[in-house]
Amino acid sequence: MTFAGSHILSIGQFEREEIERIFQVADQMKPYAQRQRITHVLDGAILGSMFFEPSTRTRVSFGCAFNLLGGHVRETTDIASSAIAKGESLYDTARVLSGYSDVIAMRHPQSGSVSEFASASRVPVINGGDGANEHPSQALLDLYTIKNELISRGHEGIDGFRIALIGDLKFGRTVHSLCKLLTLFNNVTVHLVAPEELKMPEDIVDQMRRAKLTVIESDSLEQGIGKVDITYSTRIQEERFSSQEEADLYRGRYRLNQAIYTRYCEPNTVIMHPLPRDSREGANELDNDLNDNPNLAIFRQADSGVLVRMALFVLILDVVDQVDEYSRKVRWYTKSRF
Amino acid sequence: MTFAGSHILSIGQFEREEIERIFQVADQMKPYAQRQRITHVLDGAILGSMFFEPSTRTRVSFGCAFNLLGGHVRETTDIASSAIAKGESLYDTARVLSGYSDVIAMRHPQSGSVSEFASASRVPVINGGDGANEHPSQALLDLYTIKNELISRGHEGIDGFRIALIGDLKFGRTVHSLCKLLTLFNNVTVHLVAPEELKMPEDIVDQMRRAKLTVIESDSLEQGIGKVDITYSTRIQEERFSSQEEADLYRGRYRLNQAIYTRYCEPNTVIMHPLPRDSREGANELDNDLNDNPNLAIFRQADSGVLVRMALFVLILDVVDQVDEYSRKVRWYTKSRF
Amino acid sequence: MTFAGSHILSIGQFEREEIERIFQVADQMKPYAQRQRITHVLDGAILGSMFFEPSTRTRVSFGCAFNLLGGHVRETTDIASSAIAKGESLYDTARVLSGYSDVIAMRHPQSGSVSEFASASRVPVINGGDGANEHPSQALLDLYTIKNELISRGHEGIDGFRIALIGDLKFGRTVHSLCKLLTLFNNVTVHLVAPEELKMPEDIVDQMRRAKLTVIESDSLEQGIGKVDITYSTRIQEERFSSQEEADLYRGRYRLNQAIYTRYCEPNTVIMHPLPRDSREGANELDNDLNDNPNLAIFRQADSGVLVRMALFVLILDVVDQVDEYSRKVRWYTKSRF
Repeated sequence: MTFAGSHILSIGQFEREEIERIFQVADQMKPYAQRQRITHVLDGAILGSMFFEPSTRTRVSFGCAFNLLGGHVRETTDIASSAIAKGESLYDTARVLSGYSDVIAMRHPQSGSVSEFASASRVPVINGGDGANEHPSQALLDLYTIKNELISRGHEGIDGFRIALIGDLKFGRTVHSLCKLLTLFNNVTVHLVAPEELKMPEDIVDQMRRAKLTVIESDSLEQGIGKVDITYSTRIQEERFSSQEEADLYRGRYRLNQAIYTRYCEPNTVIMHPLPRDSREGANELDNDLNDNPNLAIFRQADSGVLVRMALFVLILDVVDQVDEYSRKVRWYTKSRF
Repeated sequence: MTFAGSHILSIGQFEREEIERIFQVADQMKPYAQRQRITHVLDGAILGSMFFEPSTRTRVSFGCAFNLLGGHVRETTDIASSAIAKGESLYDTARVLSGYSDVIAMRHPQSGSVSEFASASRVPVINGGDGANEHPSQALLDLYTIKNELISRGHEGIDGFRIALIGDLKFGRTVHSLCKLLTLFNNVTVHLVAPEELKMPEDIVDQMRRAKLTVIESDSLEQGIGKVDITYSTRIQEERFSSQEEADLYRGRYRLNQAIYTRYCEPNTVIMHPLPRDSREGANELDNDLNDNPNLAIFRQADSGVLVRMALFVLILDVVDQVDEYSRKVRWYTKSRF
Repeated sequence: MTFAGSHILSIGQFEREEIERIFQVADQMKPYAQRQRITHVLDGAILGSMFFEPSTRTRVSFGCAFNLLGGHVRETTDIASSAIAKGESLYDTARVLSGYSDVIAMRHPQSGSVSEFASASRVPVINGGDGANEHPSQALLDLYTIKNELISRGHEGIDGFRIALIGDLKFGRTVHSLCKLLTLFNNVTVHLVAPEELKMPEDIVDQMRRAKLTVIESDSLEQGIGKVDITYSTRIQEERFSSQEEADLYRGRYRLNQAIYTRYCEPNTVIMHPLPRDSREGANELDNDLNDNPNLAIFRQADSGVLVRMALFVLILDVVDQVDEYSRKVRWYTKSRF
């Protein structure tokens, strides 16, 4: 694929070399995201941020990424305040709203809706999550975090690493997308830790095996986390269960805390989570006593989201080479921030 | 009227030469709205966007127009989140909020409220719709679209053209305002197509006749669209009926589709609609099979909204002559957009 | 305290000289807030505006202040659209969201929550109100207004002035904070006018007396307002009472109007109110017939909010000396605004 002018709808659209290009550009964004420099490369451009479903984190991350590139952001956060409620088709909404911006980031509760929207849009669209279907920028930032954590621990890259995916592997959109991405790499070992009822869908397991990944399934946290470079815990997606009671059967089933980490994990095992982690008693899939563990990568992971989204913007708007040209040092106080 | 510092509250405030001035400035905005150039003319200025009633399209269009001129936008979208709920008068709200911006775009469910607000405001206010009363920028963008479509078909301008207004002519704020605007022009013929119960109010018909427009009333779509340059369909304003059942009596009464268009319309008849069009089965006043008809002007109409709103901003802030001076070429990828 | 990099959480954190520094910087902001000049000093910076409770006025005032300094604003207005609903701790929210901006302005319904958030934040946090606890920028803008009004009437400063605080002194967060601030000044006389049930809490009265302020308590408006430089009326905080009936016992108890003002107040007594004032019949603590009284300072008070918030931003981001350097004249129409 050529990035310039493209929609970003699914991780399935990327080859390995495109992933690596995105990560290379994301690296280039660090001085801007870390507020050492500012750039005006997208000065005058407008992001249409259309979140037809609540999402503070992803929405603000996209908006912040665009602001850091010097652009404006126009937001729509409420589907009720939309013409869709008056019977407007997604086609019409797309044709109209795409006249108001240079690029669109969109979340929608319905599977497939973002692609449908994109096909009528006059500007590039980035899928910020369409129901249980895809959330490509999340998968990219997860993999980008994995790569950075591995390299800072002496690995050469993603090939040959070992990861444990833990928790709700049935409904977790994030882990599905990540597994698909991993098939582009070599010698990866994946430990799947889930209760029988929340196992990873078979077609995804098959896809990984066909791509020569080593896949080991288990329902024991202790077994799963023993021989990996990275643990990746997930929240029970309560909103996908038929009742709260059913969801509660699984909440709190796998709890990683400092004691378990020390006892079972290899030294310097990375701890990840797509966030938000559920810190209520009864859930607590990742205990707060890990907050001072330097291997807890969950906030570096969130920071990576800004870098990856900046990279996507400059790639599809084709301004990679201009980012540094229109930049200068930050002049305000930023000490002790990162 | 002088534009500099004025409120834009009603189409009644304009003479023909002012309308023409707005359209001339709107033309000048095209390179910016079409992302060939960017301008910093309103760099540092703040638009207060106050929508006390949902409206994605109009709200985003105003915000985008201001961003395209280089300004910031501060939004309030929820009346519940407003001090009005604590008993604050519109006078106080206007006095306070007008200290926070350089110009205000406001929508409010109550007829007359925007004028009341404007009289206490310390900055110019643009009416973005006050209940069933006025929505002047919509009427202006409709007429601006009419002018452009006529000219691209060899007409010299608005004088002497023929239009069919179709559907809910009783409650449609848009068509009322458009009719009033048309009285400023010569030799205009207006076909009004509506069911008996949803006819255009008599005072507006009288106003048009006094201004020497030719007005023909009918309840037949086929008769109305036969000899016109432009058809202008409208949505049934369900929210103005006492019950959904009553509204349903009229939804779907007049459906323009490609077959009817081919059979009854003159070649190249322009198809307009204020949007959103109701694409649900049972409504469908403008069929999706018209989407590839090059005479379907509804999305050019939406794009015109940005141009007209940019024109209003630069006129009331008196920076028309500076727009090009503080501009430069766009440097990001924009191919195949328009 | 040093301002650079500090949180602004409570008025208790300030010494007198810091208050005076804030006011000095606020004065320096006037050409920008009054749209004579614009500055790009915070060009490229991002304010995270997190209002987990409705507040049009404070939210827009913070956002506007940041825009006037040239920065971007990213907003979150709805707690329901937040990860908190999925069990995320305030710690996690703070760690994540503080990676998306350079400074945060936050309101939260829970007392103490903003401090808790700040302790996990990687960027400075300004408390925009945490329940019944603190709202430091409001107290600062009140005192800044008092200072300006006194000086324009020939006083030399805040020392030695007399004020009447009227109404709901029990639940009014604003008056509590203001009283604490007043203890930093000399020879101040405070008349407290409240019904028995809504009296100022004793610990605050004690605190003022220990600081050698003269405190006079009464339940009579006429007695309270007779010998002061400033009257400060408040709204009954209906939302803090157990029932509307109970709140209604006090609404409308103290009504200041032009007749009472003329009869009881000294000439040129300043009239203040933290706004919103409740203008519904039955409340009306500050009558609309005072709107043309030049001593009504309530809108100057709202304008001061922008100045004080601009001052806080440039102080904690340490760019005071650069504000004028990166500035230029406004080029759009601003006549007759202030």
